[in-house]
Amino acid sequence: MSQQPDNDVHLITGGAGFIGANLAAALLARGARVVVFDNFSRGSRDNLRGLTEYNTMAVEEVDCADLNALGAALRKVSGFGAITEVWHLAANSDIPAGVADPGIDLRHTFLTTFAVLQLMRDNAIKRLNFASTGAVYGDMGDIEIHENSAPLEPISNYGAMKLASEAQIRAAVEQFVERANIFRFPNVVGVPATHGVIYDFIDKLLADPTRLHVLGDGSQRKPYLHCETLVEAMLFIRDHSEAPFGVYNVGPNDPGVTVRWIAETVAEIFGGNPEIIYGTQNRGWVGDVPKFRYSTDKLRTLGWATEISSEDALRKAITQIVAQRRA
Amino acid sequence: MSQQPDNDVHLITGGAGFIGANLAAALLARGARVVVFDNFSRGSRDNLRGLTEYNTMAVEEVDCADLNALGAALRKVSGFGAITEVWHLAANSDIPAGVADPGIDLRHTFLTTFAVLQLMRDNAIKRLNFASTGAVYGDMGDIEIHENSAPLEPISNYGAMKLASEAQIRAAVEQFVERANIFRFPNVVGVPATHGVIYDFIDKLLADPTRLHVLGDGSQRKPYLHCETLVEAMLFIRDHSEAPFGVYNVGPNDPGVTVRWIAETVAEIFGGNPEIIYGTQNRGWVGDVPKFRYSTDKLRTLGWATEISSEDALRKAITQIVAQRRA
Repeated sequence: MSQQPDNDVHLITGGAGFIGANLAAALLARGARVVVFDNFSRGSRDNLRGLTEYNTMAVEEVDCADLNALGAALRKVSGFGAITEVWHLAANSDIPAGVADPGIDLRHTFLTTFAVLQLMRDNAIKRLNFASTGAVYGDMGDIEIHENSAPLEPISNYGAMKLASEAQIRAAVEQFVERANIFRFPNVVGVPATHGVIYDFIDKLLADPTRLHVLGDGSQRKPYLHCETLVEAMLFIRDHSEAPFGVYNVGPNDPGVTVRWIAETVAEIFGGNPEIIYGTQNRGWVGDVPKFRYSTDKLRTLGWATEISSEDALRKAITQIVAQRRA
Repeated sequence: MSQQPDNDVHLITGGAGFIGANLAAALLARGARVVVFDNFSRGSRDNLRGLTEYNTMAVEEVDCADLNALGAALRKVSGFGAITEVWHLAANSDIPAGVADPGIDLRHTFLTTFAVLQLMRDNAIKRLNFASTGAVYGDMGDIEIHENSAPLEPISNYGAMKLASEAQIRAAVEQFVERANIFRFPNVVGVPATHGVIYDFIDKLLADPTRLHVLGDGSQRKPYLHCETLVEAMLFIRDHSEAPFGVYNVGPNDPGVTVRWIAETVAEIFGGNPEIIYGTQNRGWVGDVPKFRYSTDKLRTLGWATEISSEDALRKAITQIVAQRRA
C-alpha cells in the first residue's frame, strides 16, 4: 500500500461497518482526513473505537438514502475541508434479509447510491469508489468469471441492487463523476464481524456446542479474502487505476473453499468436537450462488495480487471471530 | 402474429402511452381482456379512444411507482378476473429530462418496476413482459451488439434505470416470477407520438417552417422500428420464448438510418423546403449514443424477422405524425 501522505478528504458511507472501519483505519494511517457517515444499523461507534486517537476523523449518524440528511451531515463536517472523494460502502449486507423483504436492498443499497450520487453532483465531488460484489454475475456455473463476462444475471436482490447501483454510477460518469472505481468483492471475512458464515457457525456453537447445523450440503465453493487484504487492494486500485469507470474483480489467487471446509475449520478452532450436520441442497438459501470462480487477472495486470489464500484468510478470521465472540 | 383466442387477463402499465396503446389494440384484437394502468403524464385516454368499442378493456389512472395505489387499482378491476400477465411499459421515455433530473428516471422507470414486481408477488402473477432498451448497452462503437455483449455501460440515466430494472426482474425470476421476457427496443416510431426526433423536428417546423435546427451534426446512425412492427415482435416473443428469463434485441434487419436522413425526409414530407442547420457534435445530448448497430439474430432464430426497413418505418411514421400534428 502506498505510504505517501494523503491530503484528500475522504467520505466513507457505511464507514462504521465491518469493511468501512478497516478502510477508515487504513486511510487515517496514510495521513488522510476521514469523514464517516453511518446509520449504525450494523455498524457501530465501537468499531471505530481504536481510531479515536486521530483528530482527523469525524463521524456522523445519518441515513445515507436521505439526500437532505446527507446534505445536513456534510454541512456539519465542513470544518474538515471539502470532501474530495467518496467511498460508498453503505448497503444492506444481509442477502437472505433482502430476499424476504426487497425493500431493504432497495433502500439501503440502491437508494443510498442514488442519494450519494446526488450529493456528489450538488457538491462537485468528482471521485467515487464503490463496494460492489461478485453477486452481480449470478450463477455462472463452472466458468472463470472476468469483469466482462456476460450475461449478468444476479439471482438475489442484493446482487440486483448492486448491479443497479453500478449502472447508475456509469451514467453519472457521463455527467459529473470524473473517476469511479467499482470493486467487485468476493466473500470478505475478518473483524469486527457482524454476520456471515463464520459468525453464524460460531453463533450456533455458542448456543449448542455439541452440534453444528449447516445450511446446504456444504459443497458450495467460493473465494474468500480477509478484509485487511481487501482494503489493501481497494487502495491500490484507487491509487493506480486511470479508467474513468474501472471495474475490478477483487479476490484471492485460488478457486476458493467449500462450506464443508469452513464448518470443519470453525469446529476445530472453536473446539469441543461438535457433530456437523449438513442439509441436502447445494445452496444455503434463495440467491445463494453454489459455485463461484473468479478471475483476478485484470487486477494482477494493474499490479496487485495477494499470496494469502482463501484458507489462510478464513483461518485468520475464524480465530479472530472466535476471540471477538468470547470476549 | 398468433390469432388464437386469448383467455388471459393482461395488465399493461403505461398502457395509455404510445407503445402501450398499440399493444392494447393488438391484445384486444386477439380476444384478450386488457387492463390499462397509466398515470396519464404522457399517455392519455385519447390514445385509447379507438378501443372503447371493446367491453374487454378497463382503464385506471394510477401512479405505478406507488404499491398501495397499484393494489387499490387492482381491486377496482377485480371483476375482470385475476391478472395472469403483466406488460410493464410504464417509464419515463424522455432521456434528456432524466439527465437534467435523475429523480424522474428513478421514480418513473426504476421504482415502477420495483412496485410492479411487488404487486406480482403479492398477487401471485407469474408472467412478466418488460419494455427495456438498447440504451442498456451504452456506446459500444462499431461492434454489432448481441444480447450477451459486455460490458453493459449505459451512458444515460434512462439506460441505467432500465438496466437496473432488468437486474431486479432477474432476481425476481429466482423467487416468484415464472417467466420474464425482456425486450430491448431500438428507436421506435409511429403514432400517437408524444416525443422523439420526428416529433421534435415537426414541432420546430410548425414554429418556423423556413428552417430546421438539428441537435448534433446529423451523423448519428440508429435502427428504427415502427411501433406496429414492434408490437408484433413482442407478441411473437411472448408466444414463443420458453426461457424463464429471455432477453431479446428487437429491431429491423438493417444498420439503421442517420439523423441527417431523418431531417431531410421530414423536410421533404412536411414540405416548404426549409433550410436544415446542423450542430457540430456527433451526439444530440448527454446520454445520446452516436452509433448503434444491433444484432437481431436471437429473435430471428426464435422465428421472427421483419422486412420493414428503418427507412420504411420512418417514412410511414413521419407521414402519420405530420398528419397527427396538423389535425
